[in-house]
Amino acid sequence: MIAPIAAPNSGRLFIVGLGPGHARLRTHEADEALAKAQDIFGYYPYLDRIDARPGQIKHPSDNREELDRAREALLKVVEGRSVAIVSGGDAGVFAMAAAVFEAIESGAPSWRELEIEVIPGVSAMHAAAARLGAPLGNDFCAISLSTNLKPWTLIEKRLQHAVEGDFVIALYNPASMARPDQIYQAFDILNRLLPADRLVCLAKNIGRDNEECIISKLSEVEIKQINMSTLVLIGSSGTRSIPRAKGSWIYTTRGAK
Amino acid sequence: MIAPIAAPNSGRLFIVGLGPGHARLRTHEADEALAKAQDIFGYYPYLDRIDARPGQIKHPSDNREELDRAREALLKVVEGRSVAIVSGGDAGVFAMAAAVFEAIESGAPSWRELEIEVIPGVSAMHAAAARLGAPLGNDFCAISLSTNLKPWTLIEKRLQHAVEGDFVIALYNPASMARPDQIYQAFDILNRLLPADRLVCLAKNIGRDNEECIISKLSEVEIKQINMSTLVLIGSSGTRSIPRAKGSWIYTTRGAK
Repeated sequence: MIAPIAAPNSGRLFIVGLGPGHARLRTHEADEALAKAQDIFGYYPYLDRIDARPGQIKHPSDNREELDRAREALLKVVEGRSVAIVSGGDAGVFAMAAAVFEAIESGAPSWRELEIEVIPGVSAMHAAAARLGAPLGNDFCAISLSTNLKPWTLIEKRLQHAVEGDFVIALYNPASMARPDQIYQAFDILNRLLPADRLVCLAKNIGRDNEECIISKLSEVEIKQINMSTLVLIGSSGTRSIPRAKGSWIYTTRGAK
Repeated sequence: MIAPIAAPNSGRLFIVGLGPGHARLRTHEADEALAKAQDIFGYYPYLDRIDARPGQIKHPSDNREELDRAREALLKVVEGRSVAIVSGGDAGVFAMAAAVFEAIESGAPSWRELEIEVIPGVSAMHAAAARLGAPLGNDFCAISLSTNLKPWTLIEKRLQHAVEGDFVIALYNPASMARPDQIYQAFDILNRLLPADRLVCLAKNIGRDNEECIISKLSEVEIKQINMSTLVLIGSSGTRSIPRAKGSWIYTTRGAK
Protein backbone atom coordinates (compact mmCIF):
# COMPACT_ATOMS: atom_id res chain seq x y z
CA MET A 1 0.00 0.00 0.00
CA ILE A 2 1.19 3.49 -0.79
CA ALA A 3 1.76 5.54 2.36
CA PRO A 4 -0.80 8.29 3.03
CA ILE A 5 0.54 11.80 2.66
CA ALA A 6 1.70 13.80 5.68
CA ALA A 7 0.08 17.11 6.63
CA PRO A 8 2.28 20.11 5.72
CA ASN A 9 3.53 22.73 8.16
CA SER A 10 1.96 25.46 6.06
CA GLY A 11 0.10 25.76 2.80
CA ARG A 12 1.92 25.48 -0.49
CA LEU A 13 1.15 25.15 -4.18
CA PHE A 14 2.90 22.98 -6.76
CA ILE A 15 2.09 23.87 -10.36
CA VAL A 16 2.98 20.61 -12.08
CA GLY A 17 3.59 19.73 -15.74
CA LEU A 18 2.64 16.06 -16.24
CA GLY A 19 4.32 15.74 -19.63
CA PRO A 20 2.32 14.42 -22.58
CA GLY A 21 0.37 11.18 -22.02
CA HIS A 22 2.10 8.34 -20.22
CA ALA A 23 3.60 8.72 -16.73
CA ARG A 24 6.96 7.56 -18.19
CA LEU A 25 7.31 11.06 -19.68
CA ARG A 26 6.96 12.67 -16.24
CA THR A 27 9.98 13.91 -14.31
CA HIS A 28 10.90 12.60 -10.86
CA GLU A 29 10.34 16.12 -9.51
CA ALA A 30 6.74 16.04 -10.78
CA ASP A 31 6.13 12.70 -9.05
CA GLU A 32 7.61 14.04 -5.80
CA ALA A 33 5.32 17.08 -5.92
CA LEU A 34 2.23 14.97 -6.62
CA ALA A 35 3.14 12.71 -3.69
CA LYS A 36 3.05 15.72 -1.33
CA ALA A 37 -0.30 17.14 -2.44
CA GLN A 38 -3.44 16.83 -0.28
CA ASP A 39 -5.57 18.42 -3.00
CA ILE A 40 -5.04 18.05 -6.74
CA PHE A 41 -6.75 20.43 -9.16
CA GLY A 42 -6.87 20.14 -12.94
CA TYR A 43 -8.77 19.56 -16.15
CA TYR A 44 -10.46 16.20 -15.54
CA PRO A 45 -8.65 14.08 -18.22
CA TYR A 46 -5.30 15.10 -16.69
CA LEU A 47 -6.49 14.13 -13.19
CA ASP A 48 -7.49 10.72 -14.56
CA ARG A 49 -3.82 10.08 -15.33
CA ILE A 50 -2.83 10.38 -11.67
CA ASP A 51 -3.13 7.51 -9.18
CA ALA A 52 -4.44 9.21 -6.03
CA ARG A 53 -2.88 8.27 -2.69
CA PRO A 54 -4.97 7.65 0.43
CA GLY A 55 -6.08 11.03 1.76
CA GLN A 56 -5.63 12.91 -1.51
CA ILE A 57 -8.66 14.73 -2.90
CA LYS A 58 -9.03 15.34 -6.65
CA HIS A 59 -10.84 18.46 -7.81
CA PRO A 60 -11.58 18.00 -11.52
CA SER A 61 -12.86 20.89 -13.62
CA ASP A 62 -13.61 21.74 -17.21
CA ASN A 63 -11.13 23.03 -19.77
CA ARG A 64 -12.12 26.67 -19.99
CA GLU A 65 -12.27 27.36 -16.24
CA GLU A 66 -8.56 28.01 -15.70
CA LEU A 67 -8.79 31.23 -13.70
CA ASP A 68 -11.52 29.88 -11.39
CA ARG A 69 -9.51 26.69 -10.89
CA ALA A 70 -6.41 28.73 -10.03
CA ARG A 71 -8.35 30.77 -7.43
CA GLU A 72 -9.89 27.69 -5.83
CA ALA A 73 -6.45 26.10 -5.55
CA LEU A 74 -4.98 29.27 -4.01
CA LEU A 75 -7.82 29.43 -1.44
CA LYS A 76 -6.92 25.87 -0.36
CA VAL A 77 -3.29 26.95 0.06
CA VAL A 78 -4.45 29.86 2.22
CA GLU A 79 -6.26 27.27 4.41
CA GLY A 80 -2.85 25.64 4.96
CA ARG A 81 -3.28 22.73 2.55
CA SER A 82 -0.58 21.28 0.31
CA VAL A 83 -2.02 21.63 -3.18
CA ALA A 84 -1.03 20.58 -6.71
CA ILE A 85 -2.53 22.06 -9.84
CA VAL A 86 -1.66 20.05 -12.94
CA SER A 87 -1.38 20.56 -16.69
CA GLY A 88 -0.52 18.19 -19.51
CA GLY A 89 2.92 18.81 -21.04
CA ASP A 90 4.72 21.75 -19.43
CA ALA A 91 2.66 23.84 -16.99
CA GLY A 92 4.28 27.02 -18.30
CA VAL A 93 3.35 26.56 -21.99
CA PHE A 94 -0.26 27.59 -22.77
CA ALA A 95 -1.25 26.00 -19.47
CA MET A 96 -1.99 26.59 -15.77
CA ALA A 97 1.11 28.46 -14.54
CA ALA A 98 0.22 31.75 -16.25
CA ALA A 99 -3.39 31.44 -15.03
CA VAL A 100 -2.21 31.01 -11.43
CA PHE A 101 0.03 34.09 -11.56
CA GLU A 102 -2.81 36.06 -13.18
CA ALA A 103 -5.03 35.04 -10.25
CA ILE A 104 -2.30 36.02 -7.78
CA GLU A 105 -1.76 39.45 -9.35
CA SER A 106 -5.48 40.26 -9.28
CA GLY A 107 -6.09 38.57 -5.91
CA ALA A 108 -5.51 39.40 -2.24
CA PRO A 109 -2.08 40.99 -1.61
CA SER A 110 -1.28 38.19 0.85
CA TRP A 111 -1.45 35.63 -2.00
CA ARG A 112 1.86 36.98 -3.32
CA GLU A 113 3.67 35.63 -0.28
CA LEU A 114 2.31 32.06 -0.54
CA GLU A 115 4.78 29.21 -1.09
CA ILE A 116 4.60 28.33 -4.78
CA GLU A 117 6.77 26.01 -6.85
CA VAL A 118 6.45 25.50 -10.61
CA ILE A 119 7.58 22.02 -11.74
CA PRO A 120 8.48 21.95 -15.45
CA GLY A 121 7.54 19.11 -17.76
CA VAL A 122 8.14 17.90 -21.31
CA SER A 123 5.98 20.10 -23.54
CA ALA A 124 3.97 18.57 -26.41
CA MET A 125 6.20 20.00 -29.15
CA HIS A 126 9.33 18.37 -27.70
CA ALA A 127 7.64 14.98 -27.35
CA ALA A 128 6.24 15.25 -30.89
CA ALA A 129 9.64 16.30 -32.23
CA ALA A 130 11.25 13.27 -30.55
CA ARG A 131 8.84 10.88 -32.30
CA LEU A 132 9.55 12.50 -35.66
CA GLY A 133 13.34 12.84 -35.36
CA ALA A 134 14.62 16.37 -34.69
CA PRO A 135 12.37 18.92 -36.44
CA LEU A 136 13.11 21.54 -33.72
CA GLY A 137 16.85 21.25 -34.35
CA ASN A 138 17.17 24.93 -35.27
CA ASP A 139 15.42 28.19 -34.22
CA PHE A 140 11.70 27.68 -33.64
CA CYS A 141 8.59 29.28 -32.19
CA ALA A 142 5.39 28.17 -30.51
CA ILE A 143 2.06 29.84 -31.24
CA SER A 144 -1.32 29.01 -29.72
CA LEU A 145 -4.15 29.41 -32.22
CA SER A 146 -6.75 29.78 -29.47
CA THR A 147 -8.71 33.04 -29.67
CA ASN A 148 -10.26 32.63 -26.22
CA LEU A 149 -8.02 35.40 -24.88
CA LYS A 150 -6.28 37.03 -27.85
CA PRO A 151 -7.49 38.39 -31.19
CA TRP A 152 -7.06 36.51 -34.46
CA THR A 153 -5.26 39.52 -36.00
CA LEU A 154 -2.41 39.07 -33.50
CA ILE A 155 -2.15 35.37 -34.34
CA GLU A 156 -1.99 36.23 -38.05
CA LYS A 157 0.75 38.77 -37.39
CA ARG A 158 2.79 36.25 -35.40
CA LEU A 159 2.38 33.56 -38.07
CA GLN A 160 3.62 36.02 -40.66
CA HIS A 161 6.72 37.00 -38.67
CA ALA A 162 7.42 33.36 -37.84
CA VAL A 163 7.38 32.52 -41.55
CA GLU A 164 9.43 35.56 -42.57
CA GLY A 165 12.01 34.76 -39.90
CA ASP A 166 12.24 31.19 -41.27
CA PHE A 167 11.44 29.64 -37.88
CA VAL A 168 10.16 26.11 -37.45
CA ILE A 169 6.63 26.70 -36.13
CA ALA A 170 4.77 24.65 -33.53
CA LEU A 171 1.02 25.34 -33.46
CA TYR A 172 -0.70 24.58 -30.15
CA ASN A 173 -4.50 24.45 -29.72
CA PRO A 174 -4.87 24.36 -33.51
CA ALA A 175 -8.60 23.67 -33.65
CA SER A 176 -11.65 23.35 -31.45
CA MET A 177 -15.38 22.77 -31.91
CA ALA A 178 -15.96 26.43 -31.08
CA ARG A 179 -13.72 27.74 -33.88
CA PRO A 180 -13.49 25.17 -36.67
CA ASP A 181 -12.54 27.67 -39.40
CA GLN A 182 -9.41 29.23 -37.95
CA ILE A 183 -7.06 26.37 -38.74
CA TYR A 184 -8.13 26.74 -42.41
CA GLN A 185 -7.37 30.48 -42.22
CA ALA A 186 -3.96 29.70 -40.68
CA PHE A 187 -3.14 27.32 -43.54
CA ASP A 188 -4.31 29.96 -46.07
CA ILE A 189 -1.61 32.26 -44.68
CA LEU A 190 1.02 29.51 -44.66
CA ASN A 191 0.15 28.44 -48.21
CA ARG A 192 0.40 32.03 -49.42
CA LEU A 193 3.82 32.64 -47.84
CA LEU A 194 5.63 29.29 -48.02
CA PRO A 195 6.64 26.93 -50.86
CA ALA A 196 4.17 24.11 -51.59
CA ASP A 197 6.73 21.43 -50.70
CA ARG A 198 7.46 22.76 -47.19
CA LEU A 199 7.29 19.82 -44.73
CA VAL A 200 4.39 19.71 -42.25
CA CYS A 201 3.90 17.17 -39.46
CA LEU A 202 0.63 16.49 -37.67
CA ALA A 203 1.45 14.83 -34.36
CA LYS A 204 -1.67 13.31 -32.82
CA ASN A 205 -2.21 12.01 -29.26
CA ILE A 206 1.53 12.08 -28.53
CA GLY A 207 2.58 10.06 -25.50
CA ARG A 208 -0.65 8.05 -25.61
CA ASP A 209 -1.30 4.53 -26.95
CA ASN A 210 -3.02 5.85 -30.09
CA GLU A 211 -0.26 8.31 -31.03
CA GLU A 212 0.24 8.96 -34.74
CA CYS A 213 2.42 11.24 -36.89
CA ILE A 214 1.30 12.30 -40.36
CA ILE A 215 3.99 13.88 -42.55
CA SER A 216 3.09 15.72 -45.74
CA LYS A 217 3.94 18.64 -47.97
CA LEU A 218 2.26 21.92 -47.03
CA SER A 219 0.05 21.94 -50.12
CA GLU A 220 -1.17 18.42 -49.35
CA VAL A 221 -1.99 18.71 -45.63
CA GLU A 222 -5.39 17.21 -44.79
CA ILE A 223 -6.57 19.99 -42.53
CA LYS A 224 -9.66 18.08 -41.43
CA GLN A 225 -7.32 15.60 -39.67
CA ILE A 226 -6.37 18.35 -37.18
CA ASN A 227 -8.15 18.46 -33.82
CA MET A 228 -7.39 19.65 -30.26
CA SER A 229 -5.16 16.61 -29.65
CA THR A 230 -2.94 17.52 -32.61
CA LEU A 231 0.33 19.41 -32.43
CA VAL A 232 1.11 20.91 -35.84
CA LEU A 233 4.76 21.41 -36.82
CA ILE A 234 5.59 23.54 -39.87
CA GLY A 235 9.15 23.05 -41.10
CA SER A 236 11.61 25.85 -41.87
CA SER A 237 13.70 26.01 -45.05
CA GLY A 238 16.19 23.68 -43.31
CA THR A 239 13.69 20.95 -42.41
CA ARG A 240 14.41 17.71 -44.27
CA SER A 241 13.05 14.22 -44.60
CA ILE A 242 15.18 11.04 -44.48
CA PRO A 243 13.21 8.29 -46.21
CA ARG A 244 13.59 4.76 -44.87
CA ALA A 245 11.67 1.50 -44.84
CA LYS A 246 9.70 2.29 -41.63
CA GLY A 247 8.42 5.81 -42.41
CA SER A 248 10.66 8.89 -42.63
CA TRP A 249 12.77 10.73 -40.09
CA ILE A 250 12.20 14.52 -40.06
CA TYR A 251 14.93 16.85 -38.86
CA THR A 252 16.02 20.46 -39.20
CA THR A 253 19.67 21.06 -40.02
CA ARG A 254 21.72 22.77 -37.33
CA GLY A 255 23.34 24.95 -39.96
CA ALA A 256 21.58 27.48 -42.19
CA LYS A 257 22.54 29.92 -44.91
CA MET B 1 24.44 -3.41 -6.26
CA ILE B 2 22.85 -2.27 -9.49
CA ALA B 3 22.36 -5.16 -11.95
CA PRO B 4 24.69 -5.17 -14.96
CA ILE B 5 23.00 -4.44 -18.25
CA ALA B 6 21.90 -7.27 -20.56
CA ALA B 7 23.27 -7.62 -24.11
CA PRO B 8 20.72 -6.50 -26.73
CA ASN B 9 19.44 -8.67 -29.60
CA SER B 10 20.53 -6.05 -32.10
CA GLY B 11 22.06 -2.61 -32.06
CA ARG B 12 20.02 0.42 -31.15
CA LEU B 13 20.52 4.08 -30.35
CA PHE B 14 18.79 6.15 -27.69
CA ILE B 15 19.19 9.92 -28.12
CA VAL B 16 18.48 11.07 -24.58
CA GLY B 17 17.66 14.49 -23.13
CA LEU B 18 18.91 14.57 -19.53
CA GLY B 19 16.98 17.73 -18.58
CA PRO B 20 18.85 20.65 -17.01
CA GLY B 21 21.13 19.82 -14.08
CA HIS B 22 19.86 17.49 -11.36
CA ALA B 23 18.62 13.97 -12.13
CA ARG B 24 15.28 14.94 -10.49
CA LEU B 25 14.48 16.84 -13.70
CA ARG B 26 14.96 13.71 -15.82
CA THR B 27 12.01 11.69 -17.08
CA HIS B 28 11.48 8.03 -16.21
CA GLU B 29 11.82 7.23 -19.91
CA ALA B 30 15.30 8.80 -19.95
CA ASP B 31 16.36 6.69 -16.95
CA GLU B 32 15.04 3.54 -18.63
CA ALA B 33 17.01 4.29 -21.81
CA LEU B 34 20.22 4.99 -19.87
CA ALA B 35 19.78 1.70 -18.01
CA LYS B 36 19.78 -0.21 -21.32
CA ALA B 37 22.87 1.39 -22.84
CA GLN B 38 26.19 -0.47 -23.11
CA ASP B 39 27.93 2.65 -24.45
CA ILE B 40 27.13 6.23 -23.51
CA PHE B 41 28.39 9.10 -25.64
CA GLY B 42 28.23 12.80 -24.83
CA TYR B 43 29.90 16.06 -23.93
CA TYR B 44 31.93 15.17 -20.84
CA PRO B 45 30.13 17.35 -18.23
CA TYR B 46 26.84 15.65 -19.16
CA LEU B 47 28.41 12.20 -18.82
CA ASP B 48 29.60 13.18 -15.34
CA ARG B 49 25.96 13.50 -14.30
CA ILE B 50 25.27 9.81 -15.04
CA ASP B 51 26.04 6.99 -12.60
CA ALA B 52 27.43 4.24 -14.84
CA ARG B 53 26.27 0.67 -14.28
CA PRO B 54 28.67 -2.29 -14.29
CA GLY B 55 29.55 -3.03 -17.91
CA GLN B 56 28.65 0.40 -19.24
CA ILE B 57 31.35 2.34 -21.09
CA LYS B 58 31.35 6.13 -21.17
CA HIS B 59 32.76 7.90 -24.24
CA PRO B 60 33.23 11.56 -23.31
CA SER B 61 34.05 14.15 -25.95
CA ASP B 62 34.40 17.89 -26.33
CA ASN B 63 31.61 20.36 -27.03
CA ARG B 64 32.24 21.15 -30.66
CA GLU B 65 32.62 17.57 -31.91
CA GLU B 66 28.93 16.78 -32.32
CA LEU B 67 29.01 15.26 -35.80
CA ASP B 68 32.03 13.05 -35.04
CA ARG B 69 30.39 11.93 -31.78
CA ALA B 70 27.19 11.07 -33.68
CA ARG B 71 29.13 8.98 -36.22
CA GLU B 72 31.08 7.11 -33.55
CA ALA B 73 27.85 6.29 -31.73
CA LEU B 74 26.22 5.07 -34.97
CA LEU B 75 29.22 2.84 -35.71
CA LYS B 76 28.76 1.19 -32.29
CA VAL B 77 25.10 0.58 -33.12
CA VAL B 78 26.15 -1.05 -36.40
CA GLU B 79 28.37 -3.40 -34.32
CA GLY B 80 25.20 -4.50 -32.51
CA ARG B 81 25.70 -2.47 -29.32
CA SER B 82 22.99 -0.72 -27.35
CA VAL B 83 24.08 2.93 -27.30
CA ALA B 84 22.91 6.15 -25.66
CA ILE B 85 23.99 9.58 -26.80
CA VAL B 86 23.07 12.28 -24.31
CA SER B 87 22.43 16.03 -24.24
CA GLY B 88 21.56 18.39 -21.41
CA GLY B 89 17.97 19.66 -21.51
CA ASP B 90 16.04 18.31 -24.50
CA ALA B 91 18.08 16.40 -27.09
CA GLY B 92 16.06 17.97 -29.91
CA VAL B 93 16.73 21.63 -28.99
CA PHE B 94 20.13 22.89 -30.19
CA ALA B 95 21.55 19.51 -29.20
CA MET B 96 22.53 16.01 -30.36
CA ALA B 97 19.38 14.76 -32.12
CA ALA B 98 19.80 16.98 -35.20
CA ALA B 99 23.51 16.08 -35.37
CA VAL B 100 22.68 12.36 -35.38
CA PHE B 101 20.16 12.70 -38.20
CA GLU B 102 22.64 14.83 -40.14
CA ALA B 103 25.19 12.02 -39.74
CA ILE B 104 22.61 9.46 -40.86
CA GLU B 105 21.59 11.43 -43.95
CA SER B 106 25.21 11.83 -45.07
CA GLY B 107 26.27 8.34 -43.97
CA ALA B 108 25.91 4.77 -45.25
CA PRO B 109 22.40 4.04 -46.63
CA SER B 110 22.10 1.15 -44.16
CA TRP B 111 22.27 3.62 -41.24
CA ARG B 112 18.74 4.80 -42.09
CA GLU B 113 17.33 1.45 -41.04
CA LEU B 114 19.01 1.34 -37.61
CA GLU B 115 16.78 1.24 -34.51
CA ILE B 116 16.76 4.78 -33.12
CA GLU B 117 14.64 6.29 -30.35
CA VAL B 118 14.70 9.96 -29.32
CA ILE B 119 13.81 10.49 -25.64
CA PRO B 120 12.62 14.04 -24.97
CA GLY B 121 13.61 16.03 -21.89
CA VAL B 122 12.85 19.31 -20.14
CA SER B 123 14.59 22.01 -22.17
CA ALA B 124 16.49 24.82 -20.42
CA MET B 125 13.91 27.51 -21.22
CA HIS B 126 11.09 25.56 -19.58
CA ALA B 127 13.12 24.91 -16.43
CA ALA B 128 14.20 28.57 -16.30
CA ALA B 129 10.61 29.71 -16.85
CA ALA B 130 9.43 27.49 -13.99
CA ARG B 131 11.91 29.10 -11.58
CA LEU B 132 10.78 32.58 -12.61
CA GLY B 133 7.02 31.96 -12.68
CA ALA B 134 5.46 31.66 -16.15
CA PRO B 135 7.28 33.95 -18.59
CA LEU B 136 6.54 31.55 -21.52
CA GLY B 137 2.80 31.79 -20.83
CA ASN B 138 2.06 33.16 -24.29
CA ASP B 139 3.57 32.75 -27.80
CA PHE B 140 7.36 32.48 -27.69
CA CYS B 141 10.40 31.57 -29.74
CA ALA B 142 13.83 30.06 -29.16
CA ILE B 143 16.92 31.33 -30.97
CA SER B 144 20.48 30.04 -30.66
CA LEU B 145 23.04 32.84 -30.92
CA SER B 146 25.80 30.42 -31.91
CA THR B 147 27.41 31.26 -35.25
CA ASN B 148 29.28 27.94 -35.48
CA LEU B 149 26.90 26.79 -38.22
CA LYS B 150 24.78 29.78 -39.27
CA PRO B 151 25.58 33.37 -40.20
CA TRP B 152 25.04 36.30 -37.84
CA THR B 153 22.85 38.05 -40.43
CA LEU B 154 20.27 35.25 -40.12
CA ILE B 155 20.31 35.56 -36.33
CA GLU B 156 19.75 39.31 -36.63
CA LYS B 157 16.84 38.75 -39.01
CA ARG B 158 15.23 36.24 -36.62
CA LEU B 159 15.68 38.54 -33.64
CA GLN B 160 14.00 41.32 -35.58
CA HIS B 161 10.98 39.18 -36.55
CA ALA B 162 10.72 37.80 -33.04
CA VAL B 163 10.52 41.34 -31.68
CA GLU B 164 8.11 42.58 -34.35
CA GLY B 165 5.87 39.58 -33.74
CA ASP B 166 5.85 40.41 -30.00
CA PHE B 167 7.08 36.95 -29.04
CA VAL B 168 8.71 36.15 -25.71
CA ILE B 169 12.27 35.27 -26.79
CA ALA B 170 14.54 32.60 -25.30
CA LEU B 171 18.19 33.00 -26.30
CA TYR B 172 20.25 29.79 -26.18
CA ASN B 173 24.06 29.73 -26.42
CA PRO B 174 24.11 33.49 -25.81
CA ALA B 175 27.87 33.89 -25.42
CA SER B 176 31.12 31.99 -25.70
CA MET B 177 34.82 32.69 -25.35
CA ALA B 178 35.13 32.44 -29.14
CA ARG B 179 32.55 35.17 -29.83
CA PRO B 180 32.35 37.55 -26.87
CA ASP B 181 30.92 40.48 -28.86
CA GLN B 182 27.78 38.97 -30.35
CA ILE B 183 25.67 39.12 -27.21
CA TYR B 184 26.38 42.88 -27.14
CA GLN B 185 25.29 43.13 -30.78
CA ALA B 186 22.11 41.19 -29.96
CA PHE B 187 21.28 43.61 -27.14
CA ASP B 188 21.99 46.55 -29.46
CA ILE B 189 19.20 45.24 -31.71
CA LEU B 190 16.85 44.61 -28.77
CA ASN B 191 17.53 48.05 -27.28
CA ARG B 192 16.84 49.70 -30.61
CA LEU B 193 13.52 47.89 -31.16
CA LEU B 194 12.03 47.45 -27.69
CA PRO B 195 11.03 49.81 -24.86
CA ALA B 196 13.67 50.39 -22.19
CA ASP B 197 11.47 48.91 -19.45
CA ARG B 198 10.91 45.56 -21.20
CA LEU B 199 11.56 42.75 -18.69
CA VAL B 200 14.65 40.56 -19.19
CA CYS B 201 15.61 37.50 -17.13
CA LEU B 202 19.08 35.96 -16.99
CA ALA B 203 18.69 32.39 -15.78
CA LYS B 204 22.07 30.96 -14.77
CA ASN B 205 23.02 27.33 -14.03
CA ILE B 206 19.37 26.27 -13.91
CA GLY B 207 18.76 22.90 -12.26
CA ARG B 208 22.16 23.05 -10.53
CA ASP B 209 23.03 23.95 -6.95
CA ASN B 210 24.35 27.38 -7.93
CA GLU B 211 21.30 28.39 -9.98
CA GLU B 212 20.42 32.07 -10.03
CA CYS B 213 17.86 34.29 -11.78
CA ILE B 214 18.57 37.98 -12.41
CA ILE B 215 15.58 40.09 -13.44
CA SER B 216 16.03 43.58 -14.86
CA LYS B 217 14.72 46.10 -17.33
CA LEU B 218 16.15 45.78 -20.84
CA SER B 219 18.09 49.05 -20.61
CA GLU B 220 19.71 47.92 -17.35
CA VAL B 221 20.79 44.37 -18.25
CA GLU B 222 24.38 43.67 -17.16
CA ILE B 223 25.47 41.93 -20.34
CA LYS B 224 28.82 40.88 -18.89
CA GLN B 225 26.87 38.58 -16.50
CA ILE B 226 25.87 36.42 -19.49
CA ASN B 227 27.90 33.28 -20.23
CA MET B 228 27.34 29.87 -21.87
CA SER B 229 25.48 28.63 -18.76
CA THR B 230 22.94 31.47 -19.04
CA LEU B 231 19.53 31.23 -20.66
CA VAL B 232 18.32 34.72 -21.58
CA LEU B 233 14.57 35.40 -21.63
CA ILE B 234 13.30 38.63 -23.21
CA GLY B 235 9.71 39.43 -22.25
CA SER B 236 6.94 40.33 -24.70
CA SER B 237 4.57 43.29 -24.21
CA GLY B 238 2.49 41.02 -21.97
CA THR B 239 5.30 39.99 -19.62
CA ARG B 240 4.73 41.31 -16.09
CA SER B 241 6.40 41.28 -12.71
CA ILE B 242 4.61 40.54 -9.43
CA PRO B 243 6.70 42.05 -6.62
CA ARG B 244 6.77 40.20 -3.31
CA ALA B 245 8.99 39.93 -0.25
CA LYS B 246 11.12 37.03 -1.66
CA GLY B 247 11.98 38.41 -5.13
CA SER B 248 9.46 38.84 -7.94
CA TRP B 249 7.39 36.39 -9.97
CA ILE B 250 7.58 36.93 -13.74
CA TYR B 251 4.77 35.81 -16.00
CA THR B 252 3.29 36.54 -19.41
CA THR B 253 -0.45 37.08 -19.57
CA ARG B 254 -2.41 34.46 -21.48
CA GLY B 255 -4.44 37.19 -23.13
CA ALA B 256 -3.13 39.91 -25.43
CA LYS B 257 -4.51 42.83 -27.38
